[in-house]
Amino acid sequence: TSRPVITLARGDGIGPSLSDAVVHCLKASGAQLDIQEVSVGEQAYLAGHSSGIPPSAWDTIRRNKVLLKGPITTPQGSGYKSLNVSLRKTLGLYCNMRPVVAVSPAIPTRFPDMDVVIIRENEEDLYAGIEHRQTQQVIQCLKLITQPGCERIVRYAFDYAKKNNRKKVTCMVKDNIMKATDGLFTRVFREVGEQYPEIQQDVMIIDIGAARLANNPTAFDVIVTLNLYGDIISDIAAEISGSVGIGASANIGATHAMFEAVHGSAPTIAGKNIANPSGMLLSSVMMLNHLGQADVASRLHNAWLATVESGIRTVDIAESKDKAVGTREFAAAVAKNS
Amino acid sequence: TSRPVITLARGDGIGPSLSDAVVHCLKASGAQLDIQEVSVGEQAYLAGHSSGIPPSAWDTIRRNKVLLKGPITTPQGSGYKSLNVSLRKTLGLYCNMRPVVAVSPAIPTRFPDMDVVIIRENEEDLYAGIEHRQTQQVIQCLKLITQPGCERIVRYAFDYAKKNNRKKVTCMVKDNIMKATDGLFTRVFREVGEQYPEIQQDVMIIDIGAARLANNPTAFDVIVTLNLYGDIISDIAAEISGSVGIGASANIGATHAMFEAVHGSAPTIAGKNIANPSGMLLSSVMMLNHLGQADVASRLHNAWLATVESGIRTVDIAESKDKAVGTREFAAAVAKNS
Ligand SMILES: CC(C)[C@H](C(=O)O)[C@@H](O)C(=O)O
Ligand SMILES: CC(C)[C@H](C(=O)O)[C@@H](O)C(=O)O
Repeated sequence: TSRPVITLARGDGIGPSLSDAVVHCLKASGAQLDIQEVSVGEQAYLAGHSSGIPPSAWDTIRRNKVLLKGPITTPQGSGYKSLNVSLRKTLGLYCNMRPVVAVSPAIPTRFPDMDVVIIRENEEDLYAGIEHRQTQQVIQCLKLITQPGCERIVRYAFDYAKKNNRKKVTCMVKDNIMKATDGLFTRVFREVGEQYPEIQQDVMIIDIGAARLANNPTAFDVIVTLNLYGDIISDIAAEISGSVGIGASANIGATHAMFEAVHGSAPTIAGKNIANPSGMLLSSVMMLNHLGQADVASRLHNAWLATVESGIRTVDIAESKDKAVGTREFAAAVAKNS
Repeated sequence: TSRPVITLARGDGIGPSLSDAVVHCLKASGAQLDIQEVSVGEQAYLAGHSSGIPPSAWDTIRRNKVLLKGPITTPQGSGYKSLNVSLRKTLGLYCNMRPVVAVSPAIPTRFPDMDVVIIRENEEDLYAGIEHRQTQQVIQCLKLITQPGCERIVRYAFDYAKKNNRKKVTCMVKDNIMKATDGLFTRVFREVGEQYPEIQQDVMIIDIGAARLANNPTAFDVIVTLNLYGDIISDIAAEISGSVGIGASANIGATHAMFEAVHGSAPTIAGKNIANPSGMLLSSVMMLNHLGQADVASRLHNAWLATVESGIRTVDIAESKDKAVGTREFAAAVAKNS
């Protein structure tokens, strides 16, 4: 197979320095790929591309199929509600996968055995972004749920569980209130689930599900849910595992895929060489697996692990402030370990 | 003032035995009130009232203004999506208040200093229950947000904070995605907030807000949010404070109020004398305060506290199974302590 070309969007705020760190580590790990950069987000907007995503960037992203993305800021006035959501929807990335594994004791957590994968529908729900003002005082937002959309993500979750020897898939929605929309999701979950008798299946209402996850995450394995619920519970899972700063994600569609950290562009700490590149780095590990480079992926993952375990950590996860290293120094250590 | 008459709906599942326990404690505490019972829920449905709420029950509830409610089950076929939601909406109970205070070490929690009040909009949002099928495969649900609805609940939260010497109110919604609906809530929060300069104010996106709450609840004081988010984060808060079994709530409107536990009717453990009446009991303490009987309220609350602190607890919060007492025995101990 020929050497793949991926697209890199360096992003806004802390994005560029995280991206530099990750590219440095990718090179050191021996990843077989070429990188084409595009400018997306506030950066592109300020350079005169009013939409925040220039047509040439779309072309590159479409052509290369795999996008590694730093956190971006949606420019006010770009006409987009959220560039992140636009990328997901335009590229048909229906699955947002967020594995959350504790790395204890290197990164302190109350739940050292936590190992959860959240599989989140990524195109529908309230994220359709359809809002309108009915009267001066009444506004509505449309929550959209489709049968094919539910089926695709539920099937993805069960297939993922099967392929990765996961024992249980838990469905979480609010179908006692939204009987038609969320009820459809649960119905599809039960139907599709029948084809996976070897996998344990559980259905929980999202309120109690989120509460149990927050209090006892080790009771969970794979969770499949709708877009907004997935947004909320994946941040909960990442935070209680140690930090949202290490949260990684894959946005996967039939033809394209996008890899990004779970956190935002944190403009207030941009340019200070203090941000943690771990979220984006672990997302790039997911990307390597997606590209079929499992060996490189595990080498890079282990290098990251060895680094944090040796006490080399950015300030957000450092043992104490004076022991923290900078973004570049952290990346250099990972590169050296890989 | 004349002795108030309240309505009691004993509820389904574990509801009747919880209600008996609570009535026993109310009497022992010297609460000045008379009780009129109504039959609501599955119970009423099975007795032939197809709606689950007989007209005479509505009359009583409307007349007495204050309703103490055990958990109920919405009968399939009653035509109601949720009797709980119908009660809230019909009575105009726009505010759902859920205080969550750790009771450590009596009830173990990782967060012994937790003391959070969640104030949840209780009539609007996706709970309007407007769903319809667009095509065979596409279903939508309407999320409805109004300016007066936002203003009322935000004002309630600030007034509550002021009256109770709370330091901070945190607003949590997803206004980076739902810019019109959730954006309205945030805008109203900031506007109304200007009239309360003595109170700290904070705005967080619900995903990161829920994550921070789950990981570090002591950083929060009063939280104000929309219906569905409030549903999720109040279960999280209750669970990490020790148990959803002790979660109490007040549903408050301009003219009526309803007090209920946060948990459900748990039909599988009904009739076994093992359910924990604490959620409903602490809700009745909120009711006593609402009725202006603050002395009785604090006496009953202290009696409850003394009971759990002395090691007398139902099985869900007991130190060990063989040390657990039954619902009736727990109530008897609280009554004795009050
Ligand atoms: C930035 C925002 C659009 C996004 C979301 O809500 O999905 C973020 O919170 C996430 O989880 O990736
Ligand atoms: C039973 C259900 C309708 C209810 C809700 O969603 O509000 C419950 O979860 C609660 O929090 O009181």
